[in-house]
Amino acid sequence: MRLDVWFSPLGLTPGEVQGRTVLVIDILRAGTAMCAALHNGARAVLPVASTEEALRLAQTLGTADVLLAGERNCLRIDGFALGNSPLEMTPEIVRNKNIIMTTTNGTPALIATQGAQAVYPAVAANLTRAGRRAAEVWERDHDLLILCAGRENRFSLDDAYCAGRLAVEALGGHKRRKGLNDAALASLDLVRRYGTRFERPLRFSSGGQRLESLGFGADIEESSRVDAYPALLTYHERRVIASPVTP
Amino acid sequence: MRLDVWFSPLGLTPGEVQGRTVLVIDILRAGTAMCAALHNGARAVLPVASTEEALRLAQTLGTADVLLAGERNCLRIDGFALGNSPLEMTPEIVRNKNIIMTTTNGTPALIATQGAQAVYPAVAANLTRAGRRAAEVWERDHDLLILCAGRENRFSLDDAYCAGRLAVEALGGHKRRKGLNDAALASLDLVRRYGTRFERPLRFSSGGQRLESLGFGADIEESSRVDAYPALLTYHERRVIASPVTP
Repeated sequence: MRLDVWFSPLGLTPGEVQGRTVLVIDILRAGTAMCAALHNGARAVLPVASTEEALRLAQTLGTADVLLAGERNCLRIDGFALGNSPLEMTPEIVRNKNIIMTTTNGTPALIATQGAQAVYPAVAANLTRAGRRAAEVWERDHDLLILCAGRENRFSLDDAYCAGRLAVEALGGHKRRKGLNDAALASLDLVRRYGTRFERPLRFSSGGQRLESLGFGADIEESSRVDAYPALLTYHERRVIASPVTP
Repeated sequence: MRLDVWFSPLGLTPGEVQGRTVLVIDILRAGTAMCAALHNGARAVLPVASTEEALRLAQTLGTADVLLAGERNCLRIDGFALGNSPLEMTPEIVRNKNIIMTTTNGTPALIATQGAQAVYPAVAANLTRAGRRAAEVWERDHDLLILCAGRENRFSLDDAYCAGRLAVEALGGHKRRKGLNDAALASLDLVRRYGTRFERPLRFSSGGQRLESLGFGADIEESSRVDAYPALLTYHERRVIASPVTP
């Protein structure tokens, strides 16, 4: 039984994913925006790879209950209703909507999980819910893969720290080493280093610095809030939805 | 002025490397074996990508002063004189030899640096020398790239920790954050976590575990020895040589 962390989807093969339970992390900001949207009543988030695909899908679905969301270089895509900020996903705006979303890092990471047994987008905003599901999988002796979206296919500190936090939840602590790959060990080391507050690694990360410089500092704060939008998200048949809560 | 760490060569583009000074790390074991060989009097190490290329090059060079070295799955390649262990590189065996070497991770990392201004293989065995050179480059306001060979193009804890140690040498400490990419920050975090002894991260790493299971535990100990083979190595025109020491 293994827990592997990947710091980006680059090099991930279908064989690595096949039949496994995968947690996908893009904390700044796509994953957090999805949590906010679905917690606030959106029906589904539909991640797509490109602006063109988003427009095509919107045309297919009809526009009444559809919103387009997404960013390039952290900025809202021209002509889209929404960017990528969790703060935009208010109940008034998203309730009962299908949100078609395309982002630089989060979307490709979700698409890379094709063939997985189950896929759960996970961030600080739904940490306990996603972590509990990971722990259940681990306790049933099943393999886990925690996939960081990273930044442009590279290591990002924000996602890597979040991977460590989820690993702690899954393992019930951070002392275990057996069955963990090197990236999982390092992500646990980041938790030891930064403790329980998300904000510091998020602010230190290059993604966080970039957001700050663009005036999105409030998004970092929002994305750091543990269990701010406590929904268990699942990605299945190209849609992210909030699972009904089982007591 | 930037210091970037890459946890594997995967995704590294010629643009990232162009004109920069690059330190290349493969501590378990190719980089350490190169240090040992060159410190012990080998003329040069010639890294090549494949067994076939190694045999072809040996034929071109003639066999008198040539040795073949390398591994696949950590084991000596059939018909090669040497594997990949620093302990094999004794003065008796390597003096005045050209060593043609092909390994799973270290060789591709060196080849990925094409176009760099200067390339220095760096490990614990030559930490101070390589670190001093990195510090000189940094002090002249030039960019640095520390490239981990990793393990099969993935993050490896042993190389990542070593990257952190070299970053500390280059920066003269581990407090700086400006100009560092996220991987550089995380590698410094690993130094905070593991302190100054190389042996623990090397033994915890999956590469280390694999070596241990094959009976190469002594190689881990050898590769952990700081400044065991204090040569400044340079890689240029497809050869690794020891630089003459400048006082």
